[in-house]
Amino acid sequence: MTTLIPNPAADLTHAHLTNADVAQLDTRSVFHSWSAQGALKPLPIAGGSGSVVWDHDGKRYLDFSSQLVYTNLGHQHPKVVGAITEQVQQLATIAPAHANETRAEAARLVTERAPEGFHKVFFTNGGADANENAIRMARLVTGRDKVISRYRSYHGNTGAAIVATGDWRRVPNDFARGHVHVFGPYLYRSEFWATTPEEESARALHHLERVIQLEGASTVAAILLETIPGTAGIIVPPPGYLAGVREIADRYGIILILDEVMAGFARTGEWFAFDAFDVRPDLITFAKGVNSGYVPVGGVVISDAIAEAFDERVFPGGLTYSGHPLAAASVVANLTAMAEEGVVENARRIGTETFGPGLAALAEKHDVIGEVRGAGVFWAVELVADRATREPVDAATIGRLKAALLERGLLPFTADNRLHVVPPAIVTTDEAAQGLAIIDEALATL
Amino acid sequence: MTTLIPNPAADLTHAHLTNADVAQLDTRSVFHSWSAQGALKPLPIAGGSGSVVWDHDGKRYLDFSSQLVYTNLGHQHPKVVGAITEQVQQLATIAPAHANETRAEAARLVTERAPEGFHKVFFTNGGADANENAIRMARLVTGRDKVISRYRSYHGNTGAAIVATGDWRRVPNDFARGHVHVFGPYLYRSEFWATTPEEESARALHHLERVIQLEGASTVAAILLETIPGTAGIIVPPPGYLAGVREIADRYGIILILDEVMAGFARTGEWFAFDAFDVRPDLITFAKGVNSGYVPVGGVVISDAIAEAFDERVFPGGLTYSGHPLAAASVVANLTAMAEEGVVENARRIGTETFGPGLAALAEKHDVIGEVRGAGVFWAVELVADRATREPVDAATIGRLKAALLERGLLPFTADNRLHVVPPAIVTTDEAAQGLAIIDEALATL
Repeated sequence: MTTLIPNPAADLTHAHLTNADVAQLDTRSVFHSWSAQGALKPLPIAGGSGSVVWDHDGKRYLDFSSQLVYTNLGHQHPKVVGAITEQVQQLATIAPAHANETRAEAARLVTERAPEGFHKVFFTNGGADANENAIRMARLVTGRDKVISRYRSYHGNTGAAIVATGDWRRVPNDFARGHVHVFGPYLYRSEFWATTPEEESARALHHLERVIQLEGASTVAAILLETIPGTAGIIVPPPGYLAGVREIADRYGIILILDEVMAGFARTGEWFAFDAFDVRPDLITFAKGVNSGYVPVGGVVISDAIAEAFDERVFPGGLTYSGHPLAAASVVANLTAMAEEGVVENARRIGTETFGPGLAALAEKHDVIGEVRGAGVFWAVELVADRATREPVDAATIGRLKAALLERGLLPFTADNRLHVVPPAIVTTDEAAQGLAIIDEALATL
Repeated sequence: MTTLIPNPAADLTHAHLTNADVAQLDTRSVFHSWSAQGALKPLPIAGGSGSVVWDHDGKRYLDFSSQLVYTNLGHQHPKVVGAITEQVQQLATIAPAHANETRAEAARLVTERAPEGFHKVFFTNGGADANENAIRMARLVTGRDKVISRYRSYHGNTGAAIVATGDWRRVPNDFARGHVHVFGPYLYRSEFWATTPEEESARALHHLERVIQLEGASTVAAILLETIPGTAGIIVPPPGYLAGVREIADRYGIILILDEVMAGFARTGEWFAFDAFDVRPDLITFAKGVNSGYVPVGGVVISDAIAEAFDERVFPGGLTYSGHPLAAASVVANLTAMAEEGVVENARRIGTETFGPGLAALAEKHDVIGEVRGAGVFWAVELVADRATREPVDAATIGRLKAALLERGLLPFTADNRLHVVPPAIVTTDEAAQGLAIIDEALATL
């Protein structure tokens, strides 16, 4: 063991640290997600409140990223901060085998927001292991192996979740077996030569069913879909698609897992994004918005039929921090505050009254916008070099847009050729309008 | 969405809830790890302090489980509780792409406890995804696929981690490719017909090297080992084994990952369990003791050579809660308190002065004990029906032992035919002796 050396920052209080100090401390010791480590320029964040964050040099930003689209209740909500403070004083941790009333209440509040016939929650540490465990349940209940998911999707970074994922992140990590990918409906870049939403939906369903038939329906355990694919582009399913997937799943005895990790808990103006569609999943995976990420947590909401399949049979999955009391306290407070403060309704109203018309107006004005789509506080602005060919803008253009937004005090979320407009679900009309004005200005600089 | 219904427990304060109330609330809504759900009888825990917990009916227990062998600093340590309280008031969460000084300091304090040449930490949510990401790094750096791990091991419940695992939990989850299992040294139940520790070590190394040669050394990315296999039986490696593994890894260009999730951070009376052995890993995975589980966290400590391999190349792994500020604050406080309060030294002393001689005395006295082994506060008591044949006791015997221990106020950790003696690393000499006295009494009832 190395002798412990003094901390060079030990005599600096938070107030004394500059952005440069914190960035230096960070890059010396922290290995970052999804990055080349040599060229990191992380923005230090010193604090936040509601939809605003600030750095160590005193600059304030409207957080139109919700970090990684998870601070649905905004930063430092006093009820969630208070609940975590209270729980940590009472009992910070207890193993999953024991019973804990905060954990039980968190599970009850989650199931209460699910459809009839969902009464059990299996808690995990995040969205990835939620999907891992949902896949496990589907395989064990059906006795089948294969999991069908979509290209243009993200389901997490662990063994099965990353191979269920349908973007570039899967490719270097393709070490799980039993995964099959299909194309989903995405009219703006249709893989099915469709020209209307209805046609796109019908053709995507035909494609899905043909893949199932040719893979051998009796080998397919689950269809795993983000209700609305998130990082992949906030691709709202066209009419009939999800209902059609449900029908196909039923026809072939396949479990339908809806991944609500990013879309759930007020993001789309619903408790679950699928509430806006005519579909009932068998398993629901969640994380992010369920507690606005104040403590790492995720989980699976389990239909009674699947839960009962494990009444007599051992469920061969588990983890040390399943149902962690601090996470549970934050879930209880987050869901209660969302209900008391009408946060779901706020997100829906902002989507209908501000982002919907506001982004449509920006699309009218800026030729670089190819399409805007979304719901609630979950919108994608797709940027194109040419409206006719729909050729995506290049990475340099997105880089210039990000810089222009940051300069004007808006913290953006970008993915590929898109700007995602994803502030907390508590964003006010004024803040939403202010964000759109900044985006308008920044687009004008391109 | 279902209409929100009133919480039946809303008018009950913690003080009013009985064990029966909490168990009922739990089993109604919570789906449990590694269990058949129909027969759960979870013990409700209302609070804890140091090495003691208590239930809702006022009964107190010496926690000789450390929950799932993770509360190394004990329950409700005021410095860790205080650090979490302070951090949640300041900034509960921030995305991993930003820089955060608490995260940087947590990473620095972890690397400070590692050997020379480790300067970066990749934070995860727990031990499973720490192993997932270490495996990912090894595969990308070597350009090879296979991961060799041991039978009698546990590495986590996600896609690759569960298939690296070498116990019954892998079998229903065997959906990852590129995993190979070998036998490790375990003289009491030798797979190599060995009669001395040195012979067991040499033969286990021969076996490992033959498997590597026959799998094709150029296909093997990593050897992944718990430094001391934990739940599998606290199987302390015999002299020369780990040094021999290092030599073999070097001979064939293989990355050595040591899984310190359960054994690390004071458990064995060392910061890292491998500090007691002549071995230097390339990657170290951790969770549990790093913050005593007060907030879900895990991670990978990365050698400079491997970290630098990702300076120019994108690391294709990541997660929303990587380096979560609450987790980071608890890591900083936990590691600082351990250093200030001599917790590593305490665990070593308890092992040498109390558990070592005390468990040896119990083995003298009780024929049901086949072997005791361990270090620090990490001991296994292996129970046998027959000392000559070493036939394990059956599950009913372990069930009776657990009941006898609980009745006498000791919360036990059992696995297969073993009692693991694994209290917090802050356990006092009096508490350690008291626990041994209870175990003595309980063994006498068998």
